[in-house]
Amino acid sequence: MTQRGRFITLEGGEGAGKSTQAKRLAAALAAAGLPVLRTREPGGTPGAERIRDLLLGHGPWDSVAEAMLHFAARREHLVGTIRPFLESGGWVVCDRFADSTLAYQGAQGLKREVWARLAEVALEGFAPDVTLVLDLPVAAGMARAAARSGADRYERMDEAFHARVREGFLAIAAAEPARCAVVDASRAADVVFDDMVGLLRERVGARL
Amino acid sequence: MTQRGRFITLEGGEGAGKSTQAKRLAAALAAAGLPVLRTREPGGTPGAERIRDLLLGHGPWDSVAEAMLHFAARREHLVGTIRPFLESGGWVVCDRFADSTLAYQGAQGLKREVWARLAEVALEGFAPDVTLVLDLPVAAGMARAAARSGADRYERMDEAFHARVREGFLAIAAAEPARCAVVDASRAADVVFDDMVGLLRERVGARL
Repeated sequence: MTQRGRFITLEGGEGAGKSTQAKRLAAALAAAGLPVLRTREPGGTPGAERIRDLLLGHGPWDSVAEAMLHFAARREHLVGTIRPFLESGGWVVCDRFADSTLAYQGAQGLKREVWARLAEVALEGFAPDVTLVLDLPVAAGMARAAARSGADRYERMDEAFHARVREGFLAIAAAEPARCAVVDASRAADVVFDDMVGLLRERVGARL
Repeated sequence: MTQRGRFITLEGGEGAGKSTQAKRLAAALAAAGLPVLRTREPGGTPGAERIRDLLLGHGPWDSVAEAMLHFAARREHLVGTIRPFLESGGWVVCDRFADSTLAYQGAQGLKREVWARLAEVALEGFAPDVTLVLDLPVAAGMARAAARSGADRYERMDEAFHARVREGFLAIAAAEPARCAVVDASRAADVVFDDMVGLLRERVGARL
């Protein structure tokens, strides 16, 4: 029987370097001989990508409706892509997962209880093996994100919103220390990556 | 204080005549001097119409994801359109509502419990004042629907599926007799309409 792979999620606010680090991490896991899938949310399957377009390109949505759209996309992603790949022994590196819905929609007024009920329906207990929260002061993250072109609807929100998002991620990490680790993402990318590798060796036995 | 209006939903399978009867009913209510909104699901707001396009034009979706998309659209419709109109004293005639999600997605394997949890999150106890289930033998409904052009994904499903949908609607009506009434839609449209009017006089005091 094939051993189930590992599900690694990267979380954090805008400009924290999640995409860059996800790419680097996937390359390192592949170089170590592991089957790796790098993916992101919302998205990751054709249907979920269509929902992503709705979420990022339209709105504003009612906060409950928005959370439902995120979990509909997540369900498609989980059932169609993530779970089959894990079951075949692969390792999945995912840029954002359910924690992002709690941090972002929570910052817009979604109740934690509503999030929890939707998570239960969509995920049926499924959770990442390890979640690395890339943490950065809000101003630094916004400056980095602004330097990129084509800001989406979330990236255009104000500083107070992003401060609530950051607090949301830190609260999740504090509440679930066995799953989550906070990584100081204000440092140089190489230093951040070395920290991530150390955490993955420790937590999911990655031979990196 | 303005008296709250009434929320009337029409339910049933393909070809039962819901759209035609909804049009006629809205016209009769308007002729009786009531402010009327005729709407339909999935859809009814710009965001919900976009979700409708996803649901009808794409897929297949995982049954839980599909139900979440329906309830996301419904939440937008409820919060953005239906509830404000009812609160201003208007009457709403809606072609399909939450019962359709249970009958259709239930016929594709969605568990009733999952439907109920999503309904609770999206609707927070909100329900139609009266639901008229237009009931028709499956073969007759499919023949009528086939006579129309541009069948969508649900209309192309097989007879066994539509039989489960019909059973689903009848089970809902049997379980909630105070809200639901079954109307035999195999008869002439005028006779069906007269029945509907009689039921609305009785159940929601419509002066028609």
